[in-house]
Amino acid sequence: MSRSLQIVGAGLLGTSVGLALARSEWRVWIADADQQAQRLAGELGAGTAGWSPVDPDVVLLCVPPSAVFEIIQIVERLYPTSTISDVSSVKTQPQLNAEQLGCSERFVGGHPMAGRERSGAVAARGDLFEARPWVICPNGVADPARVTVIEQLARDCGADPIVVDAESHDTAVALVSHLPQIAASAVAGQLGNASPTAMALAGQGLRDTVRIAGSDPRLWVDILTANAAALAPIVSRLAADLGQVAEALKAVGGPVTSDDVGVDRHVDKTIERFLDQGLRGFEQIPGKHGAPATSYTVIPVVIPDESGALAHLFATVAKAGASVEDIALEHSPGHPIGIVELSVRPEDAPGLVRALAADGWSSH
Amino acid sequence: MSRSLQIVGAGLLGTSVGLALARSEWRVWIADADQQAQRLAGELGAGTAGWSPVDPDVVLLCVPPSAVFEIIQIVERLYPTSTISDVSSVKTQPQLNAEQLGCSERFVGGHPMAGRERSGAVAARGDLFEARPWVICPNGVADPARVTVIEQLARDCGADPIVVDAESHDTAVALVSHLPQIAASAVAGQLGNASPTAMALAGQGLRDTVRIAGSDPRLWVDILTANAAALAPIVSRLAADLGQVAEALKAVGGPVTSDDVGVDRHVDKTIERFLDQGLRGFEQIPGKHGAPATSYTVIPVVIPDESGALAHLFATVAKAGASVEDIALEHSPGHPIGIVELSVRPEDAPGLVRALAADGWSSH
Repeated sequence: MSRSLQIVGAGLLGTSVGLALARSEWRVWIADADQQAQRLAGELGAGTAGWSPVDPDVVLLCVPPSAVFEIIQIVERLYPTSTISDVSSVKTQPQLNAEQLGCSERFVGGHPMAGRERSGAVAARGDLFEARPWVICPNGVADPARVTVIEQLARDCGADPIVVDAESHDTAVALVSHLPQIAASAVAGQLGNASPTAMALAGQGLRDTVRIAGSDPRLWVDILTANAAALAPIVSRLAADLGQVAEALKAVGGPVTSDDVGVDRHVDKTIERFLDQGLRGFEQIPGKHGAPATSYTVIPVVIPDESGALAHLFATVAKAGASVEDIALEHSPGHPIGIVELSVRPEDAPGLVRALAADGWSSH
Repeated sequence: MSRSLQIVGAGLLGTSVGLALARSEWRVWIADADQQAQRLAGELGAGTAGWSPVDPDVVLLCVPPSAVFEIIQIVERLYPTSTISDVSSVKTQPQLNAEQLGCSERFVGGHPMAGRERSGAVAARGDLFEARPWVICPNGVADPARVTVIEQLARDCGADPIVVDAESHDTAVALVSHLPQIAASAVAGQLGNASPTAMALAGQGLRDTVRIAGSDPRLWVDILTANAAALAPIVSRLAADLGQVAEALKAVGGPVTSDDVGVDRHVDKTIERFLDQGLRGFEQIPGKHGAPATSYTVIPVVIPDESGALAHLFATVAKAGASVEDIALEHSPGHPIGIVELSVRPEDAPGLVRALAADGWSSH
């Protein structure tokens, strides 16, 4: 059955939804207040640029959280029968907005768990939602048929719909998405005082920890503000925990010397408990396949930094029949040689190591 | 010229140094209070298990910072003429220890910027130091010839020696290594309260931010304690910045509603300034080749999750002659399809995209 969709907002998410549905049954329009963005999204194949002349089945708001109220106000008058959904990173606020505007019975909020550090239509990808969770928050008032159509939309974009209530969603993303964003920005923010020596010693640990601090501050201020209620107590706890670590470090004082030999430094226990708690939290994070975190065997392979090397390496991996679960490429500053870390299931490791050795690779 | 080295401590670093020098001119002994670790290191080929019968050219202490004092005390009597160095992550403390023990003139501290989340001899790799910086801290008292021999040792392990004073080193690593470690543990530590829903929504952002929280707490409590003086003020600043963000979030209050339309929410500026500062810090981090951060073009390619797929993909990449600067493999929960993100120099991108398309890859 053919369905119609009006996307409002031709940014990363709106354009990606349009691209994802390009070869589907959906008839898609895509509109943006920014005429250039609207035209670009149309040219990229995300849909017909502009507004649907009749009520579409679904109007999908792909605008920042702070604009949701204003846009619902417009579209609920423009399309009085359409199901209205959104893709914003917070879910209590749009639901409340719909309620205030008296259109709760046709509002079903959503949040595809997909994104990039880059934004705008040019960064859009038709596979952005491929196999990602797409949270859908029925508000208890909307017609169940409207919930079903949004679930179908999510599936047609390649995503896995997950039904969660808005409050649980907002608490969850505060912890697993918004808090890491704030922590990454906080650590990166300290680098303003870094000496050239310090930056020369920066390694992969720092780069990974602050990677998401490279995201667009304009978008994130909006997301964090919209989820302020769920987020404030969590950030407070983080600040308090770090304050305790700072106090414990102050209490340590100078370096270990002859006076300390055999003395149990009481204060270390605070730091140790803090690190242990971090390790336990880390171990709770599910693995890449949604299963409980699996311990993969990591096989480091030394490769010359030349374009054919990876092709040869992965030919050997294919020959060994090993399934690679993760890849990390470690280049070192100023050196042409690199290390590829291949994560494989423990049972695949011995065979792969043998195959690598047989083909002349230096692995460990 | 043949040289001799006594490694003290058969953990990750000590054993890796031994392995790195296995085919060099160095004659290596490796000792550990743990007889099993010492034997294992010997069997792995990291050197002769045990103690050198005569003064070696260099004694390299590969023990945690808190054990350095005790071990210098032993080796400076055992080997009265050897140059003594270490590999610990802090440099002021061992230098002070050597001074207190009256052997400053033959002590030259060092710190290879290499490591792994795993520890112990079994995790050791002969290429661990390959092309990594190896900081060397002359104390102004030691014979320059002793500094030269430690530089040679670093180079023979494949590393790049960098001469820095101990205080600058400790301030630098506090910022670029120890602070990220603490932040990662602090964020991961909050996950103890996470609901199953929250964990199901966890994505790559969280995983990257907390990756190093998976490190060994026992080792890190020692490192953080040893660098407490340099670290305490930095962690205090981080806690204070986060406290301000928490206050700003509290002041935001509830979600944006009809009352807010057109109203400039004053408090958002704090959060925006905070995120901006994070972005500026992020942009200061040098790229993988030690050059100023280069903007690579990232090309996402959809791949089926089967063992031959990567081999075919990299064969295409090799044919296109593109130099891959980074690889990220994104699997999605419960789905067999994956996305490989290839980072390449902007000038290599168009040719690679064409080559991928010609070979039937779906890239963007």
